[in-house]
Amino acid sequence: MSKEGNREKFLEEFPELVHELKTILQNYGMPQDAIQWYESSLFFNTPGGKLNRGLSVVDTYVILKGYKSFSDMAKEEYKKVAILGWCIELLQAYFLVADDMMDKSITRRGQPCWYRVKGVGEIAINDAFMLEAAIYILLKNHFRSESYYVDLIELFHDVTFQTELGQLLDLITAPEDKVDLNKFSMNKQSFIVRFKTAYYSFYLPVALAMYMAGINSDTDLQQAQDVLIPLGEYFQIQDDFLDCFGTPEQIGKIGTDIQDNKCSWVINKALELVTPEQRKVLDENYGQKNQECEDKCREVFNSLNLPKYYEQYEENIAKELREKISQIDESRGFKGEVLTVFLNKIYKRTK
Amino acid sequence: MSKEGNREKFLEEFPELVHELKTILQNYGMPQDAIQWYESSLFFNTPGGKLNRGLSVVDTYVILKGYKSFSDMAKEEYKKVAILGWCIELLQAYFLVADDMMDKSITRRGQPCWYRVKGVGEIAINDAFMLEAAIYILLKNHFRSESYYVDLIELFHDVTFQTELGQLLDLITAPEDKVDLNKFSMNKQSFIVRFKTAYYSFYLPVALAMYMAGINSDTDLQQAQDVLIPLGEYFQIQDDFLDCFGTPEQIGKIGTDIQDNKCSWVINKALELVTPEQRKVLDENYGQKNQECEDKCREVFNSLNLPKYYEQYEENIAKELREKISQIDESRGFKGEVLTVFLNKIYKRTK
Repeated sequence: MSKEGNREKFLEEFPELVHELKTILQNYGMPQDAIQWYESSLFFNTPGGKLNRGLSVVDTYVILKGYKSFSDMAKEEYKKVAILGWCIELLQAYFLVADDMMDKSITRRGQPCWYRVKGVGEIAINDAFMLEAAIYILLKNHFRSESYYVDLIELFHDVTFQTELGQLLDLITAPEDKVDLNKFSMNKQSFIVRFKTAYYSFYLPVALAMYMAGINSDTDLQQAQDVLIPLGEYFQIQDDFLDCFGTPEQIGKIGTDIQDNKCSWVINKALELVTPEQRKVLDENYGQKNQECEDKCREVFNSLNLPKYYEQYEENIAKELREKISQIDESRGFKGEVLTVFLNKIYKRTK
Repeated sequence: MSKEGNREKFLEEFPELVHELKTILQNYGMPQDAIQWYESSLFFNTPGGKLNRGLSVVDTYVILKGYKSFSDMAKEEYKKVAILGWCIELLQAYFLVADDMMDKSITRRGQPCWYRVKGVGEIAINDAFMLEAAIYILLKNHFRSESYYVDLIELFHDVTFQTELGQLLDLITAPEDKVDLNKFSMNKQSFIVRFKTAYYSFYLPVALAMYMAGINSDTDLQQAQDVLIPLGEYFQIQDDFLDCFGTPEQIGKIGTDIQDNKCSWVINKALELVTPEQRKVLDENYGQKNQECEDKCREVFNSLNLPKYYEQYEENIAKELREKISQIDESRGFKGEVLTVFLNKIYKRTK
């Protein structure tokens, strides 16, 4: 649904926002080297991804307002909704810079992780903070006079904290260096995914568009959340499944969840189904950094017929979500179509 | 001025706030180990310092309201002003957890740095985020219905960003592992100190108390800022001076600024005064991790008679600030006494 033109137009807004942020530093009299540093961090860390979250704000707003396309919007209206989109991308940048340090990752989006760029190192922690700060500067500059200004701030605060909670639970449940499958459970996996991913990637873009479109009753926000959080969980479960069972051609990388001790849907489903002998194999081989151990885990997963369970899960959750969407109360202006668009992008995706 | 009873009463509020934060996690259904983790991080990182910033909020509020002491306040009023104080302590905790990682520090407040506690490591980055998040949760829970709620949030956002800017400039001007005195200047030192320390340690406590006391015109906030920012700079210059020229008995530690390549007042004053030969000695020995190099720098500093320049600076700045304070316009309820109290705590301090 996000047509290519949409993406291009959205990307065009970003340099203006960087310029705006730089101006603040200039007005403070900040030395040039620090201004350049901030600019580099903003450009390096923010626009390089798929921009799904940011574009979803625009797409959702278009549907809620009944526009045919994003080009129906006046320049100023487009700029405002795009800024909300970029605020999510900044939030994402803030998380990713920090996550890569915590996970000791090497590359991100086809380039080195920011903390591994020459001269950056641990300064990346402060850079992450300054990416987050940009969100609230932009909201203040562009939404201060709107009746929903406080709602936007509180929404970002709430969702940020939820994501941090998910990240915490993930970090203490599945540390890379200490495997203990007793810590895993489908319930924990669900909690981690909902908090770490679903709130900021699925609920946040829609809620932001709703506020800007003036569709902001608690009931409507709850209707959106009730679909988008399980939908976000479904998306992540797909990701987990494809990491293990997708081909490298499909997913564009080689899956590493088994060796990385990830608390994924795959291992948790397996733990529900294993015999004591198979459990022993997983205890001894899951999360070990070598191919032989990974292969032993894969043998267990294959013998448990996990793809069948995944198909069942997918059919059930898609049906459940379609039913929920069909019952959406549109009387105050919210539209089930917003949610259908998300679901259709995800259903049976193989990449 | 912060009597011991004040400190004790202030400390008593903290466990209730932790309980409140834990309750949010419990209501989310968060697993117990994550709740305990957050509790540990809050207690380990927040209340262990001198609490000067937090107590200053209470003290300033008492003066602005014309109370004789903090015990004049009703229970609920005290709790609210104490929460604002704890929000600064949480902000401080957020900065310190991260700063210690960026500076690779070993201990803090007589205990190991949080990231060096067994089992914590890089998770400390996420813990820092969650300490910051606590600020906005507490503001929302206790100040949402106040007319100045948005002012409080924006003040915290602004001051947080200013502090991060100061930290960035400090990190790129004075990295521990690459000494280049050409990067230093009195102007940069002043900028670093004002942004990294003065806003959050001096302006923020007073501004918070002013909002709660209803003395919140831009003119009055500016009056406060015009004294408190140079006052904060003066405080830090004292710190720099004492790090080099104070006795270990006075300052309670052995100064490490020379070996740590700090962009301090001492080195910047020296750079203004040196002969080319002395400059060469500093270029070759400042920021080197050994005692011999440190001693050579000290020889230069002593021969330049820096204590005399420090005394001059102190007399001038104190006089200037007293003059500014005497001209404070108290017609809207702001009181110069608030500022005098700060100045008197700092003037000629030797520890």
